[in-house]
Amino acid sequence: MSVGFIGLGCMGSRMAQNLISKNIRLTVYDSNPEKLLEFKEKGAKICSSAAELASKCKEIFTMLPNGEDVLSLYTGKSGIMETLRENTLCIDCSTIDQATSIQVSEIVETKNASFIDAPVSGGVLGAEKATLTFMVGGESKDFERAKPLFELMGKNTVHCGKVGSGQVTKLCNNMLLASQMIALAEIMNMGEKLGLDPTVLTSVINSSSGRCWASDTYNPVPGVIKGTPASNNFEPGFTCTLMAKDLSLAQNLSTRNKIPIPMGALAHQFYLHLLNDPKYKNKDFSVIYKFFTETWKN
Amino acid sequence: MSVGFIGLGCMGSRMAQNLISKNIRLTVYDSNPEKLLEFKEKGAKICSSAAELASKCKEIFTMLPNGEDVLSLYTGKSGIMETLRENTLCIDCSTIDQATSIQVSEIVETKNASFIDAPVSGGVLGAEKATLTFMVGGESKDFERAKPLFELMGKNTVHCGKVGSGQVTKLCNNMLLASQMIALAEIMNMGEKLGLDPTVLTSVINSSSGRCWASDTYNPVPGVIKGTPASNNFEPGFTCTLMAKDLSLAQNLSTRNKIPIPMGALAHQFYLHLLNDPKYKNKDFSVIYKFFTETWKN
Amino acid sequence: MSVGFIGLGCMGSRMAQNLISKNIRLTVYDSNPEKLLEFKEKGAKICSSAAELASKCKEIFTMLPNGEDVLSLYTGKSGIMETLRENTLCIDCSTIDQATSIQVSEIVETKNASFIDAPVSGGVLGAEKATLTFMVGGESKDFERAKPLFELMGKNTVHCGKVGSGQVTKLCNNMLLASQMIALAEIMNMGEKLGLDPTVLTSVINSSSGRCWASDTYNPVPGVIKGTPASNNFEPGFTCTLMAKDLSLAQNLSTRNKIPIPMGALAHQFYLHLLNDPKYKNKDFSVIYKFFTETWKN
Amino acid sequence: MSVGFIGLGCMGSRMAQNLISKNIRLTVYDSNPEKLLEFKEKGAKICSSAAELASKCKEIFTMLPNGEDVLSLYTGKSGIMETLRENTLCIDCSTIDQATSIQVSEIVETKNASFIDAPVSGGVLGAEKATLTFMVGGESKDFERAKPLFELMGKNTVHCGKVGSGQVTKLCNNMLLASQMIALAEIMNMGEKLGLDPTVLTSVINSSSGRCWASDTYNPVPGVIKGTPASNNFEPGFTCTLMAKDLSLAQNLSTRNKIPIPMGALAHQFYLHLLNDPKYKNKDFSVIYKFFTETWKN
Repeated sequence: MSVGFIGLGCMGSRMAQNLISKNIRLTVYDSNPEKLLEFKEKGAKICSSAAELASKCKEIFTMLPNGEDVLSLYTGKSGIMETLRENTLCIDCSTIDQATSIQVSEIVETKNASFIDAPVSGGVLGAEKATLTFMVGGESKDFERAKPLFELMGKNTVHCGKVGSGQVTKLCNNMLLASQMIALAEIMNMGEKLGLDPTVLTSVINSSSGRCWASDTYNPVPGVIKGTPASNNFEPGFTCTLMAKDLSLAQNLSTRNKIPIPMGALAHQFYLHLLNDPKYKNKDFSVIYKFFTETWKN
Repeated sequence: MSVGFIGLGCMGSRMAQNLISKNIRLTVYDSNPEKLLEFKEKGAKICSSAAELASKCKEIFTMLPNGEDVLSLYTGKSGIMETLRENTLCIDCSTIDQATSIQVSEIVETKNASFIDAPVSGGVLGAEKATLTFMVGGESKDFERAKPLFELMGKNTVHCGKVGSGQVTKLCNNMLLASQMIALAEIMNMGEKLGLDPTVLTSVINSSSGRCWASDTYNPVPGVIKGTPASNNFEPGFTCTLMAKDLSLAQNLSTRNKIPIPMGALAHQFYLHLLNDPKYKNKDFSVIYKFFTETWKN
Repeated sequence: MSVGFIGLGCMGSRMAQNLISKNIRLTVYDSNPEKLLEFKEKGAKICSSAAELASKCKEIFTMLPNGEDVLSLYTGKSGIMETLRENTLCIDCSTIDQATSIQVSEIVETKNASFIDAPVSGGVLGAEKATLTFMVGGESKDFERAKPLFELMGKNTVHCGKVGSGQVTKLCNNMLLASQMIALAEIMNMGEKLGLDPTVLTSVINSSSGRCWASDTYNPVPGVIKGTPASNNFEPGFTCTLMAKDLSLAQNLSTRNKIPIPMGALAHQFYLHLLNDPKYKNKDFSVIYKFFTETWKN
Repeated sequence: MSVGFIGLGCMGSRMAQNLISKNIRLTVYDSNPEKLLEFKEKGAKICSSAAELASKCKEIFTMLPNGEDVLSLYTGKSGIMETLRENTLCIDCSTIDQATSIQVSEIVETKNASFIDAPVSGGVLGAEKATLTFMVGGESKDFERAKPLFELMGKNTVHCGKVGSGQVTKLCNNMLLASQMIALAEIMNMGEKLGLDPTVLTSVINSSSGRCWASDTYNPVPGVIKGTPASNNFEPGFTCTLMAKDLSLAQNLSTRNKIPIPMGALAHQFYLHLLNDPKYKNKDFSVIYKFFTETWKN
């Protein structure tokens, strides 16, 4: 039997391509027929519905934009649940809310099949170069079963805990990153306004206690580090829209479970702000620096 | 002529000790006579006032708790200005506000002497082991003149710009660090409440985009990294009181210069909160994690 | 035909009592049999399910704790939808999310019946004294049809717009109130710490631009106004738990619709904090003042 | 002897005019000679320095832009202290920091004279119409001595406590107001984006627990209340620049005294933001509503 892959968007198409390139027999489905044709030419089998795919595969990857799409792909008309076979392993790489992951997992188990959540970090570039990190929630045996497949698409695979834990881990990391990026942007702005050279300030921070990935690898000041989105007119990278989506999911985790997240909640507001401004929403999320420096003129 | 050192507290005494150990002839002053006796035994010359010291030294280090103390040491009765000699280099290692650094610098220049600000990072341990970082603001020639002395007390010396730039650089770094620590503590708390193992979550973050000094070197979760304050009952390290002091100085920079610092302003509020709670104020600033986990019980 | 009422909790039982007292023939249902017996003695007809009630009533009030309960009461087994008759008017007084109100409305319309959302303010006391305010979302004709019934239970009825608008209006008001209460508590704390008498400070505010319901009617400082929760050991009133619930609903409105709410998001964090502290969660929401004054001791 | 008045700017000139109109013999000083000529024509005696004025008056009003100006007017060359007479009452109506009020008070007492701080609310219109509120800090006897003069310029005079208390009271009120205005603007924006009519939403709030001066008197939505700055293209009124000044003073009070002000600190950041945008800085502070609605387009 072949491996199934549903959802051939920016991320999914590159991940599926890596599986094909590494000689996995792949069966694919996407609601967009052009995407299917494209993969037919690459040698994949194509299906006309998720149900058809589920009848033919024992491992099924899904990579979709949001939780409602995932739920409906499983439980809707011509969906996976209609034909899901015993012992199938469902692997959802979408970034969605923990509650939906758990809900789908319970539905899948009613057919004696298994579900793991495995959201990724690394972006489109990581998907293309097979350098993604997979953060996985589910049973150990399911994690071990999926691991060889993850390794064809990424360089790092972590078992984070029970179902839903992959989502929680990813959202924790991204919320932390958002808070760091804003905090970094605001001190770079303050430093410059008070006469510091941003390259000098960055070099001090990077050898001191403020050091972080946002400062030493993905610096938001144009020209300070080569090859960053900031040095390329803030072309993404990872857009404000996507960061706002992850922060909204993290906020929902906090709200539903009644766990305070004071800094993350403020970071969420900032990315909602950028998301609402056509000038910034499709730029890389490090554009918060540009927003600060070009808004604050005094 | 010998080098002068005024302010023999926790930091200053260790810095001065390093100068003596490395064969610098040192003349010292402190308002506490016991400190003076201690240094007399170590071989330093002692003075009964700042004015007396200034009449005998061509380089004068100062290391005091706050800006008011620095200003009064220079301009008060029996202060440095009464006897300051032409071409003397005044090196203030205190962490104070930029405005006071600039003000003292202007006063010092009226005597054809020079002033640089050179606040440090690295804490008491760095002072003792001569591994401090010096962030220096002032003229290049003055920076070069002081550099050999800095190198006897630290391992890293950076010329940040004109007078006051050392202060701005240090406050930018520490404000960024405070925001990061709170953001990290809140996601570690959320992760754990939602079932993640903090060691696993930390390892994902440290190989991902949330990586930072606070997570990979100074992790606030007890037991995750050995030798941190968190793993030693939050013994400082760098206390909440000291972090609150630096955040207050950074807030004043922002307020005086009308530059927004949204994350730093929220971080400031958190450390004011901890400063007001006798249970936390003298603990290491990473205790924000403990505050979150032990307050939020729901 | 009689009027139906489902949900006889703290609020619902008092509202239903007012309808009975004013000679409305009432048919009731609650999942708690003791509540049903109680209302049987008061003269109401009782039903053994929502479906039974829906088969007998042309106006149906519902007053439930949250949106999931409302949805399941309508669409679940033995629920309202099983027997709902044409032209029935469903009136939901629960405080739930706008999206659920709209969803239930669309389901109800499939049976040619109508739905309006009509959350209330005024609390248990307002329910008892028939002084509630009803904030209503739905068609004008449905609003007019329900209005005479609202007037038996409240003193103020407002048509806020289409279905869901009652929820939005209530959440806007309560989120504003939460922000005001925290802002008020913090300046009362600062004023007192700096030597002001809280009664004098309150009197200045109440005749100046800081005047608000929280300061002139529901002041959080014990003793400043008689009869407030603050003057009665912070007995509710409106608990921190209930305020946190409304702020979570408001946060969800913001998150789902991508609308920033910077002050409300911070206020939400504060009530999540109080909700997580057993000492405060069941106290009146004005206890934020006590939290500030007794935590900040410096 | 006549009453002295120093500082004939927007506020001071209108206050001084009211004293003249009510037959007080006035002696005035301002650093701007044109202002002096103007008052000479109105019948005031004019002086060429603060020192000259202080030699001729037993009550001296001062109304200046900031604390540094006040300090230098008292202690600088040709300043008040050079000639201040025993038993003179110095009445400072400027809005400055509490610490400077206390400092000047102590200086004044060295000449056996008295000082009270008496900042005002009511703005330029209140100054013109003699409807100001005076918030007074100082000894009771000094308050009683000044009261008849305050009553010629205002309609409300409150003794708030010892010296500096007038400043603290005013800043508490204005910080509360700023937080309320932002919280109100954000819920008006959210309500409208979700389909509510702002007039209906305002009317619900004004009869409910969200009622406040900002909503019922100074509503930030154009057209909802006639005669507000919002209904007049946000012409001030009270500019963002002035609100930012008061919030900075309040922030300094908090910082210096180590008292947390979480909502006020966030409000401060918003007005620093508006202050840095040339489009908003000189508009009325209710323009925060316009900033929200026109920035958030999504």
